[in-house]
Amino acid sequence: MPRSKRLSCGVQAQTNPETGINALLDVAMTTGFDFIVVPLAHPLRALRNPAAKGDAAFARADLDLYSGDWSSSVVGQISSTVQTQLDSADPAERIKAQEMFEQDTAWASHISLPAVVLPLTVAPVAADAKAPRSIANLARVLSNFLNSTLSMTVWVRVTATPMAGEPSSTEANAPVTTRAQDSWELWNTLRTLCGYNGRLAVALELPDNLPSPQSLARWKGEPVKGLFCLSSSFLTNNKGFPVLSKRHQLVVREFLEFGTQVVVDCGSNQFISPPDAKAAASAAAQASPSGKGKGKGKAAQFVDNTTTPTTIYENHLQYIGHLFDTLPALDEATRASSSFEDSLQAPLQPLMDNLESATYEVFERDPVKYAQYGRAVELALEDRVPESERATRETVIMVVGAGRGPLVQAALEAAERANCKVKVYAVEKNPNAVATLLVRKNEEWLDSVEIIESDMRAWNPPALADILVSELLGSFGDNELSPECLDGAQRLLKPDGVSIPSKYTSYLAPLSSQKLYIEVRNQYVHFSPPDERKAFETPYVVLLKNAAITNPPVPVFTFEHPNRAAKIDNSRYTSVTFTAPHNTTLHGFAGYFDTVLYKDVMLSIVPDTFSTGMFSWFPILFPFKQPVSVKADETIEIHVWRNCTREKVWYEWTCTSPISLPIHNPGGRSYYIGL
Amino acid sequence: MPRSKRLSCGVQAQTNPETGINALLDVAMTTGFDFIVVPLAHPLRALRNPAAKGDAAFARADLDLYSGDWSSSVVGQISSTVQTQLDSADPAERIKAQEMFEQDTAWASHISLPAVVLPLTVAPVAADAKAPRSIANLARVLSNFLNSTLSMTVWVRVTATPMAGEPSSTEANAPVTTRAQDSWELWNTLRTLCGYNGRLAVALELPDNLPSPQSLARWKGEPVKGLFCLSSSFLTNNKGFPVLSKRHQLVVREFLEFGTQVVVDCGSNQFISPPDAKAAASAAAQASPSGKGKGKGKAAQFVDNTTTPTTIYENHLQYIGHLFDTLPALDEATRASSSFEDSLQAPLQPLMDNLESATYEVFERDPVKYAQYGRAVELALEDRVPESERATRETVIMVVGAGRGPLVQAALEAAERANCKVKVYAVEKNPNAVATLLVRKNEEWLDSVEIIESDMRAWNPPALADILVSELLGSFGDNELSPECLDGAQRLLKPDGVSIPSKYTSYLAPLSSQKLYIEVRNQYVHFSPPDERKAFETPYVVLLKNAAITNPPVPVFTFEHPNRAAKIDNSRYTSVTFTAPHNTTLHGFAGYFDTVLYKDVMLSIVPDTFSTGMFSWFPILFPFKQPVSVKADETIEIHVWRNCTREKVWYEWTCTSPISLPIHNPGGRSYYIGL
Repeated sequence: MPRSKRLSCGVQAQTNPETGINALLDVAMTTGFDFIVVPLAHPLRALRNPAAKGDAAFARADLDLYSGDWSSSVVGQISSTVQTQLDSADPAERIKAQEMFEQDTAWASHISLPAVVLPLTVAPVAADAKAPRSIANLARVLSNFLNSTLSMTVWVRVTATPMAGEPSSTEANAPVTTRAQDSWELWNTLRTLCGYNGRLAVALELPDNLPSPQSLARWKGEPVKGLFCLSSSFLTNNKGFPVLSKRHQLVVREFLEFGTQVVVDCGSNQFISPPDAKAAASAAAQASPSGKGKGKGKAAQFVDNTTTPTTIYENHLQYIGHLFDTLPALDEATRASSSFEDSLQAPLQPLMDNLESATYEVFERDPVKYAQYGRAVELALEDRVPESERATRETVIMVVGAGRGPLVQAALEAAERANCKVKVYAVEKNPNAVATLLVRKNEEWLDSVEIIESDMRAWNPPALADILVSELLGSFGDNELSPECLDGAQRLLKPDGVSIPSKYTSYLAPLSSQKLYIEVRNQYVHFSPPDERKAFETPYVVLLKNAAITNPPVPVFTFEHPNRAAKIDNSRYTSVTFTAPHNTTLHGFAGYFDTVLYKDVMLSIVPDTFSTGMFSWFPILFPFKQPVSVKADETIEIHVWRNCTREKVWYEWTCTSPISLPIHNPGGRSYYIGL
Repeated sequence: MPRSKRLSCGVQAQTNPETGINALLDVAMTTGFDFIVVPLAHPLRALRNPAAKGDAAFARADLDLYSGDWSSSVVGQISSTVQTQLDSADPAERIKAQEMFEQDTAWASHISLPAVVLPLTVAPVAADAKAPRSIANLARVLSNFLNSTLSMTVWVRVTATPMAGEPSSTEANAPVTTRAQDSWELWNTLRTLCGYNGRLAVALELPDNLPSPQSLARWKGEPVKGLFCLSSSFLTNNKGFPVLSKRHQLVVREFLEFGTQVVVDCGSNQFISPPDAKAAASAAAQASPSGKGKGKGKAAQFVDNTTTPTTIYENHLQYIGHLFDTLPALDEATRASSSFEDSLQAPLQPLMDNLESATYEVFERDPVKYAQYGRAVELALEDRVPESERATRETVIMVVGAGRGPLVQAALEAAERANCKVKVYAVEKNPNAVATLLVRKNEEWLDSVEIIESDMRAWNPPALADILVSELLGSFGDNELSPECLDGAQRLLKPDGVSIPSKYTSYLAPLSSQKLYIEVRNQYVHFSPPDERKAFETPYVVLLKNAAITNPPVPVFTFEHPNRAAKIDNSRYTSVTFTAPHNTTLHGFAGYFDTVLYKDVMLSIVPDTFSTGMFSWFPILFPFKQPVSVKADETIEIHVWRNCTREKVWYEWTCTSPISLPIHNPGGRSYYIGL
C-alpha cells in the first residue's frame, strides 16, 4: 500500500579533485540518490588559503553547479576540526576556528545550500573525563549563525552511542559509558544552549555496532532529520548484494517511518567506482561527461553513452528503498490521521461550540468505536431482559448527545442482534445535527426512535431510561465534561439503569520532545495579544510521533456513572511519580484515557491497551513551560488538578521533582472548558 | 544621623474574646506599635460555624473596627492547620482545608487587610522524611488566591532553621537537618510553584536558638517583609529590661537595614497585662474604654483616663526602636544612593548618548574616585620627571572624555602637589560639557589647559602625551567601551607614555534574589513591543540589596593600556566555576570591576576590596531567564563572552552547570553597546 511519505535518500562521498563536484552529483542523481553530502572544505579548499590557488579556484566551486542544484541537492559538511577547536583552551585557536566556521557557513549561505552538517564528537572511550566536554563556545557561534539566517538548517551529526551508565561496547569488561561519551548528552546540551532553535536538527550516524534499543529510543523525541548509514555497516548477502543486519534494519525502518532522510556514507571509499571495481560497476566504466552541470574539469570516467551510469552504491540505495517499500502497510486510520502527526490542536469544547458536519463525519467513520458501543448495548440488553421477555418488554435507551446518530444506529443494531424490543430517545442540543437525525428517523428508524432537541441536562423525559448511552469522552477522558453532563443527565435513568460508558480513567506519562516544545512555544501567536505563557498553559490534542515517552502511563482520574453520591464532586487532584530510566529532558506529559463501556467492553487509547484501528482520539499534551532536565533514577513527580466552578472546568499541572515548576494555568487563567 | 527608612513594628497577640480586637488594637497603638497580627480564625471564629453564634456574631467582627484600621493596622493570620491539611492524603480533608483557606482570605479581602500571614511548618526533626513534604496543593490554592487579588500580600511565616546538612541543634550528636526540615527549602518550593508572585513574601521567625550565620544568610536574597521575634527570645538585663542576645541583635539589625518590619510575637502570653502583672504595667490597670474603635464588648481593664495605656511589651518595642536608632550611621554616599536599592537601570551608553549635566554632577561628587585619580597622576608625574627638571620640563597630560572637568582639576592639583609643570589637553565630544569646560578654563585654569571638542578617536594633537587620563569604566569595567576608546586614543600617547587607568578587570559572582528576578521580569513593558526575552537578555546596573551572593567574585576579563599588540582583539571569553556552598536557586550573576589607575593606586567595587565611600558605580546584574536550582557542593559553571564587531560590542552569557540554559543575547539581539 502506498505511503504518504516519500523516501529521500542521500549519499556522502568525497569529491574527486580531478572531476569535481559536478561529476559526483551527476552520478549520484543518475544512480537515484536525492542529494549528496560533501565537505564544504574540500571543493572550497581554496577559501581557506586564497593565496594558494588564486581567485580562479575560488570562483570555480561557485560555478561548478547551477544554483538550483546547490539549493536542492547538496548538503555541505563543516570541517570536523571546527567543533573541538572552538572550545580550545587557546584563544587564538578558538578565534581561528570561529573564522573557519563563519567562512564555511557564509559560503554555504552564498550558494543557498538547504542544510549544513556539523559533526559533533564525544570524548573517546579511553578518556577519563566524566563530564561532557565544554561546547559553550561552539554553541554561541552556532546560535549566532542560526539567529542570523532564516532558511538554512544545521544537521548536528552525532554517532548513536550507548547511554551513560551502559557498557561502552559488547566486549566483556567494557568500561561503562560516561556522560562525556554519550552523544545524546552532548546534543542535549547543545540544543539547550542554542535555545531550542527550530532549525537545529540531528543527523544520527548508526555505528557498525549498534547501542542498546534503550539508548536508541531516546532519539525518538529528537528532531532526527538525517540517518547516516556507514557503508562499512553493510553486509553482503548470499546473492552478493549489500544488506544490513537485522538490528540495523529495524532501526532504519523505524526512522523511515518518521520521514527521516537516509544518507549512505561511503567513508573513505570512492563513490565513483574505479575502472577495476566489480563487474556491475565496471560495466559503466568507460564514460563521457553527462550534460548536467557546467563542469570544466576532466571528464568523469564512468558514464557510458549507452548504459545508465551507476556505482557500486546503487545496490545500497535499492536496499534502503526496499526497506522503505516493505514498511508495514498503513491502515486507513493511520493514513487518514498521518497529516496530524505532531500537529497541535486545541481540545474540543462541545458544550460551548456546536460541532460541524465534517467533524461528525470523521468521527462516525471510526471502525472500532461504534462496534464496541454496539457490543456494550447488546450485552446490557441481554443482562437486563430475560430471554422470555425479549419479544414483549420494551427497553428504553436514551442516547444523550446523539450527534448525527451513529450511537442510535449502533443501539438499534444491537437490539436486533439481542432480539430485544427497544425505544430509543435521541437527545441532541445542536439543531444542525437534529436536522440530520430527523431525516434518518423518517427514512430509516421510524417509530423506534424519538428525536429530542434539548440539552440533556434540561430535558424532561416521558419515561426513565434503562440504558443511557453517551459519547462525551475526550482524549483525557473527562476533559470534554462528560462527568458534568452525565451527572446532569442521570436523572433520566431508572434507579437500576445502566450508563454506557460506566467508567473512565485518564492516564499520564512523562514526555520528551524537542519538536513539541518548539511547536507549543510557536503557539503564542494564536493568542491576542500574543502570549507565550498562555501557549504553555494550554493542553493540546496531538498525534504523538516525534516524541519519546520515558515511562509507561499511569492512571490519574477515574469517574463512574451513574454517580449516586449525596454530593457529587468532580474536582480531582493526583500526584504521580516515575523513576527516570535514563538521563533525559522532559517537555511535558502525555495524557490518555480508557473507558469501560459495559463490563469487559472497553475502549482505550493508552498505548499498552490501545483499541487497534480506532482513530477517534489522539493523546493530549500538557506542556511544561521550561524543559526539565532529569538524571537516570531520579524521581519525576507530576501533579495534576481538575478544578470546577459553576461556570467552568480547568486543569492545573506542575512538576515538583527533580525540580519544581510554576503551577500551570492557576485559576484557569489561560485555558478552561466552559459549562 | 537620621535614616531614610522608618521603623515599622508590629505585635502578634491573642485577642481577649471578652474585650475583642478593638481593645487589642487600641493598646497596641497607644503603646506605639504600628500594627497587630491576629489570627483570622479567632475573632471571626463564628464564620467557621455560623450556626453557633448566629448572624450577630458574624457581623460583630466586621464592625469592631473602622475600615481604615483594618486596612492599615491589622494583619490576619490564616489558621495553621490549613497549610498541612491542604496536602492531606484524604481528599475530604483537603477540600475542607481549601474551604477554610478561601473563607479566611475572602474575609481578609472583605475587610481590606493589607496582608495575611500563612504559617508554613517544616517536618519535625524526629521525622525520618528526607524529602520536603508535598505543598503542591497548598501552592495551587495560594496561587489561585494571589492571581485573584490585586492588593493583598501573603506573608509566608517560616522559622529560620539550620540548612540541610547542618546539625539540627547545638547539642552534641544532634541529627543532621534534612531538606524536609529546612524551611528555606519549603519556601523555595512554594514560591517556585507560585510562579514567583511579587505579592508572596517571607515572614521569618527567629527561634530562641538561632541557626548558623550561613543558614541565615540565605534569606538575604528572599523578600523578607516581616521578622518575627518571639517574646521568649528576650532576656532580662540587669536593669530589668528585655534585651536580645548578641546574635539575635545582629540579625535583627541586619534585617532592619533592609527595611523589614519587626513583629514581637507574644506567643500564648497575654499582650494586655493582667491586673497582677509587674508594676509598670499595673499602673495602668484600672481602665475604661478609649475612644478609639466602636467596640461593643466589655470595657478593657487597663486604660486609665489619666495614664498613658501601656503593656509589658512597651519595653520590647522600645528595645527594637533602640536597635534601629543605633544602626551604623549612613554616610552621605549610602544615603544618596539608598533610593537606588534593587532598582534596575540600563547601563550607560556614553558613546551613543551625551550625558546630562545632572549625571555629571552626581559623579563629580564622589569623594574617593577623583582623590585616587589625583594620587595616580601625582605618582606618575614624580616617576616621569626627575626632581631637578620639575620646574622647567612641561609634562603633557591629556584627559580624554573630560566631561565637565573633574579629572582636569584633579590633574592640575596633582601637578601642584608634585611641583610639576604641566600642559593639560581636555578632550570632550559632548558640546554641552565643552561649554562648561570653556567657562572653567577662562575663569580658573587659564593657559595651563586647552579644551578640544572632538571624539578622542579622531583628534590630531599638536604633541604626544606623557600621561593619558580617562574615566571610561563601567560597572563591569569594559562595558562602557573603555578598551575601544583607549585603543583609538593611544596614538596620542608617547611610546613610553602612561595610561591612567593602566589596567582593569571585571569580576562575577553567582547571585540569588527573588526580588531582582521579579524586577527583571517586569522590565518587559519597557520594550516595544513588550518583550520578556529582551528583559532577560539585558544586563542592568543595580545597587544590590535584597540579593544573596553565594560565592566570592572571581576575575573574568582584563584589559591593559596602552595595548601595543600588533592586532588588538578586545573580544573575550571566559568560563568560571564555583562550588555551591548550600542548596540555592540562582537568578543570574553580579558583575564588578577593579582598576589599577597607576601602580598601587586602585579603585574597586569588588566587595572584598571595595573603595570605601565611593559611589560612582553600582554592580551590574546579568540575569538568567529561568531560575537555576543548585544543590550544595554542585558545580556552578558560568560562561560569559564579550563580542565585538565594527559597529557594536555586546555580552552573551549562560550557565552550563548544574544545568544548561540557552545562551543569552546571541548576536547581541537584545542588547548591545554601539561604537
